[in-house]
Amino acid sequence: MSFVKTPVKGMRDCLPADMRLREQVIADIKETYGRYGFALIETPAIEHIENLTSKQGGENEKLIFKILKRGRDLDKALEKNLELSDIGLRYDLTVPLARYYAANAEYLPTPFKALQIGSVWRADKPQKGRFRQFTQCDIDILGENTILAEIELVGATSNMLSKILERIGISKFTVHISDRRILKAMAAWAGFEEKDFDEIFILLDKLDKIGMDGVRAEMEKAAYPAACIEKYMTLLAGMGDVVDVESFCAPLTGGHLDAKVVENLVTIISCVRTMVGADVNIAFDPSLVRGMGYYTGTIFEVTLDGYGFAIGGGGRYDKMIGKFSGTEVAACGFSIGFERIITILQDHLSAEALNGGEKHAILLDAAVSPAVMTEVFARAREMRQAGTTVTVQTLKKNAKNQIDRLEADGYTKIEKIYAK
Amino acid sequence: MSFVKTPVKGMRDCLPADMRLREQVIADIKETYGRYGFALIETPAIEHIENLTSKQGGENEKLIFKILKRGRDLDKALEKNLELSDIGLRYDLTVPLARYYAANAEYLPTPFKALQIGSVWRADKPQKGRFRQFTQCDIDILGENTILAEIELVGATSNMLSKILERIGISKFTVHISDRRILKAMAAWAGFEEKDFDEIFILLDKLDKIGMDGVRAEMEKAAYPAACIEKYMTLLAGMGDVVDVESFCAPLTGGHLDAKVVENLVTIISCVRTMVGADVNIAFDPSLVRGMGYYTGTIFEVTLDGYGFAIGGGGRYDKMIGKFSGTEVAACGFSIGFERIITILQDHLSAEALNGGEKHAILLDAAVSPAVMTEVFARAREMRQAGTTVTVQTLKKNAKNQIDRLEADGYTKIEKIYAK
Repeated sequence: MSFVKTPVKGMRDCLPADMRLREQVIADIKETYGRYGFALIETPAIEHIENLTSKQGGENEKLIFKILKRGRDLDKALEKNLELSDIGLRYDLTVPLARYYAANAEYLPTPFKALQIGSVWRADKPQKGRFRQFTQCDIDILGENTILAEIELVGATSNMLSKILERIGISKFTVHISDRRILKAMAAWAGFEEKDFDEIFILLDKLDKIGMDGVRAEMEKAAYPAACIEKYMTLLAGMGDVVDVESFCAPLTGGHLDAKVVENLVTIISCVRTMVGADVNIAFDPSLVRGMGYYTGTIFEVTLDGYGFAIGGGGRYDKMIGKFSGTEVAACGFSIGFERIITILQDHLSAEALNGGEKHAILLDAAVSPAVMTEVFARAREMRQAGTTVTVQTLKKNAKNQIDRLEADGYTKIEKIYAK
Repeated sequence: MSFVKTPVKGMRDCLPADMRLREQVIADIKETYGRYGFALIETPAIEHIENLTSKQGGENEKLIFKILKRGRDLDKALEKNLELSDIGLRYDLTVPLARYYAANAEYLPTPFKALQIGSVWRADKPQKGRFRQFTQCDIDILGENTILAEIELVGATSNMLSKILERIGISKFTVHISDRRILKAMAAWAGFEEKDFDEIFILLDKLDKIGMDGVRAEMEKAAYPAACIEKYMTLLAGMGDVVDVESFCAPLTGGHLDAKVVENLVTIISCVRTMVGADVNIAFDPSLVRGMGYYTGTIFEVTLDGYGFAIGGGGRYDKMIGKFSGTEVAACGFSIGFERIITILQDHLSAEALNGGEKHAILLDAAVSPAVMTEVFARAREMRQAGTTVTVQTLKKNAKNQIDRLEADGYTKIEKIYAK
């Protein structure tokens, strides 16, 4: 068989400059969440197929890279027409977290504040900027059933994003916050039937793309009662850049919405505002939907002005861990769009900005004596101990390219040593 | 299907304390090699089966986790009795590095100093301390055909190990250095036939376990000519803790060994000695063999007094990259026994030693007012900005366990705030 040079379809090699950027972002993430007491954890890349196909993963369950059984297990499976695989690569960090918590709860504190940064794999159609192996970054608080979880998560995430984005001179971003129970109350108050709620949410989710008239038109097309549509439109009319939680929710409260939900949302927003810089907009957004069905309360999403996609999102999902562990565990999490953030930074940062630190190259003629080499390495040792990056390389015959490349890689001092 | 709590067979969950240790070691590795100008790179976890079964991986090629084809490809494979898999998980970082270099050489400097830290997967029989997913750490210099590669690699690795091991009060370790060409010259000088060299090396490799008499007995059992065995034994008699390269190699030089090999080895050892602390023993060890067939020159291995295994090893392998790229590329590499080093550190380090930094917990009674919460989070913000780790959690009814656990996790200041 011949060797294949290119990476497997949909996979990529990370070049040194890409890695420097990724490492910088990962360091910022670890540092910021570390200050909030989040502990880094890791789960295996490979999970049980039962867990990966437990209906928590939505559409991703169709994209699993399954691992072939081996040896006698495989022979038996082929012979008896059984499944050829019982394990696969994880497609997210949420299902593994649920299993991890179920398996290890006795060794973990309560609440457990977890930070995960790791690769996930999806057999998606590869396209520009979308790969079949990519990094996810999830932050979760398990076992905290009060709004302290939401406040810590949104506060920490805002601080982390400020830190990362400030490097490229972007400091303005918006954290949209709402609650799935408000979404439900809105639909109920307007008179829609509960069986139609999910479809109503899907239409509402299009609001920023198709506008109020668009949502109305699609609702009419779906033949919802005109009275419900009209009533719902009065809520949509009240949405905008600045929406006050209490006045927006006033008509819903009581019959359709627990007043405690409103009160908590007000407290979350006001506490988070004390934790973030003036440039960060913490906004109640009743048009926020968030796709995943497992959210049970607060939901949040981060957008950056000028970019048509969210760079993070999450919410409370109090029922999911219990499906694994058998015991219900309060849970709230934030998933950071790591690859999207990297793309944004790549658009703005020069390679030089990441070279960092003093870098010194010593180029030795191939014919230098052992005594000269010994002296060079002793001197390099001293510089390295003092924190300078030093590389010792053979001086090439035509050194121009070599030197140009070293300069591009951030070597500001380049020393050539010839044989006597 | 029901959920499975335990990790997949042979896999493990990393708890926060394990992660702190691993992160510390990884940070030390990145920092030390960074000072030497090594660049961090990453290759995908998934590789082409052709590359994984290219005979560079030795026994590991039998341990590949293969990924099942999907959709129509799978149907076709089953129908026509074709291979069910054309991609698999990498079992080492060497094969991927060779492919990476072949694919990306035009974007990389020459010499290219690469650092890889990543997971590899082997469907090995799981046993205590051996997992089917584990971390490897490889450092390679490609495109440097002089001994500068060996000196930089051994020097950097010694510095890195000193830094890591000093944390547990171990500073003495030995870097054994030799050259495959000396091994061959020894066997040739003794009169063995070239076809028997590999078997002779395997017997020599047992020297530290079975001693000179054991090696002699096995050679006699294999019916090698008595004269060859006697001559070889005179070489073995010259091995010991301190062996001088030039005098040991004197009989071999000329007819069987190029004098340049000896001269280079002397320079490598003397330069590396100027780069390392007094506790690090840089020793010529003519009994060093190193298993992998792809080594072409210098070989090295690190041992720690009191441990019966190597914690790192490597050598020059000038022919391998060319098999992928078509063009021969000089290459020299070191592979660090990452998991072994972690095990040694775990035996010696207390969890407390890794908690590090100031940690402050604020426990809030569930009934505190929003105003108090706002004040707490504003104060937490200030402490976090000043570098303190702060966690804000709900105060439990029976707080003793909660507080004990926080103390165990390194929270030295624990503040309780009750509702007025």
